[in-house]
Amino acid sequence: MLPKGNFPARVYLNGEILPPERANISVFDRGFLFGDAIYEAMVQFQGGIFYKRAHWDRLQKNLEAIAVDFRVQDLDRALQPLLKASDLVQKDCFIYIQVSRGVAPRKHAFPVGTPPTAMMYALPLALPHIELRSLAAVTLADFRWHKCHIKSTSLLANVMANTSALRDDFDEAVLVREGLVTEGSHTNIFFVREGSLYTHPADHHILNGIARQIVLQLCRELDIPVVERAVALTEIAGMQEAFLTGTSTQIASLGQLDGHFYQRPGEIGPVTRRIQEAFAQRKALDTSELPL
Amino acid sequence: MLPKGNFPARVYLNGEILPPERANISVFDRGFLFGDAIYEAMVQFQGGIFYKRAHWDRLQKNLEAIAVDFRVQDLDRALQPLLKASDLVQKDCFIYIQVSRGVAPRKHAFPVGTPPTAMMYALPLALPHIELRSLAAVTLADFRWHKCHIKSTSLLANVMANTSALRDDFDEAVLVREGLVTEGSHTNIFFVREGSLYTHPADHHILNGIARQIVLQLCRELDIPVVERAVALTEIAGMQEAFLTGTSTQIASLGQLDGHFYQRPGEIGPVTRRIQEAFAQRKALDTSELPL
Repeated sequence: MLPKGNFPARVYLNGEILPPERANISVFDRGFLFGDAIYEAMVQFQGGIFYKRAHWDRLQKNLEAIAVDFRVQDLDRALQPLLKASDLVQKDCFIYIQVSRGVAPRKHAFPVGTPPTAMMYALPLALPHIELRSLAAVTLADFRWHKCHIKSTSLLANVMANTSALRDDFDEAVLVREGLVTEGSHTNIFFVREGSLYTHPADHHILNGIARQIVLQLCRELDIPVVERAVALTEIAGMQEAFLTGTSTQIASLGQLDGHFYQRPGEIGPVTRRIQEAFAQRKALDTSELPL
Repeated sequence: MLPKGNFPARVYLNGEILPPERANISVFDRGFLFGDAIYEAMVQFQGGIFYKRAHWDRLQKNLEAIAVDFRVQDLDRALQPLLKASDLVQKDCFIYIQVSRGVAPRKHAFPVGTPPTAMMYALPLALPHIELRSLAAVTLADFRWHKCHIKSTSLLANVMANTSALRDDFDEAVLVREGLVTEGSHTNIFFVREGSLYTHPADHHILNGIARQIVLQLCRELDIPVVERAVALTEIAGMQEAFLTGTSTQIASLGQLDGHFYQRPGEIGPVTRRIQEAFAQRKALDTSELPL
């Protein structure tokens, strides 16, 4: 019943591990009717699941933010059986998790006592040790809601921005709200000027990415100053480097933003490169139980 | 497999008419993963489906706005068979329709050539000829996205606002963006002052409801002046009447907004009442093919 495409071998759904074509939910699931769900994504390297605990903690926090009564420990316990069924134990893969408020007759207000729907799958994904590509992005109006710190599946705005950028042969949309750069459609963004990093503060206008938080931690260790303030659209051309961060993006140099080129094609700026190398070292460690 | 609750007798899903417990979709449906879907709701009175054509036109327009390639005529043709299977032919009912971008491996950008998922159901709903209840609402920050004119299922913001209002024993949340009243969490709002109506213009900050458009048409016929401009939060107490409109709300007097009372309990203001009566007359006509 599924179209052709890169679907996972198995899907965890509410306690069962199923072939993907049997991973079905009711049309009355509030994830389908209202985008009333939280998601999470993490990656496994050979050393383990990268900052697994930080991802689970964020998922739990997000579920609490929208009052979905669910314990992420249930998913953590199901993860190894899923990886085993998917033939991905200790293999490089991408893990996607989604928890919705569950199935109820359609009414806006949260139903009471509805068991959440929990879904999870893993797909093989070999990420480069260091991302050597240099990406190009375009700025677009940030027309998303004002609670971007909640990692919800009400994502149509992100989807529209991302589609628009890719259609114009860019790798990512960089969103601008009231003249200020917030983040990418599914990444965070950092700029570099005179040795300092600039990035939007972790408020309700960005999703505080795990990779973003790792970069902040690495910068403390490397004595690279970080200024958490939004960069104005008018400042973009005055910046010397830029990079995007994300779970599967890792740390990717942004060579071009709109008509401005930070680096020549194929080159990566020195500060970006230094952070990429520290990030790659971190990947070799077992970070699965480290807090952030 | 469904919990107890007011689920429909039958669900139309991609050409089939199914018992609700068999109306299942893939977890890879983009309606579930991304809130990447459009919805519509209409009501049938004994005279027919109220402004059916206007609803189908809006659905088509919304699907085009997010580039979902689907013809609503397919659903229009399936509607009578669905009503028959649901034992609701010519009976008072509420009809819900949702079309998502369909099933594809999870990637933000729109997939190409994916058949949309179309779902529709009808539930018995007897609306009062004239809504005699007087509702109470609370103002809340409008933290939704900036394309509220698109009737998408990325609705978590609406759901959160509605839940918050109901938890505090109000009937609706009235949303305020930058000091200006936009609309309710699932209704439009009108105010009355000195015989004139005030309502937010139909821009990207509200959903231009079919009931809202009918009210504007009735006002033209009744020579009631309408000013389409946003009412400021500071003006609420200076207004003389207020009412909410929506497909199942119809026209409902708003007796209380925050601490301000427009009417005594049980009373309905004269302008609201006049529009309610004109609206009720319109319900007696066959409006199913009328444009708006």
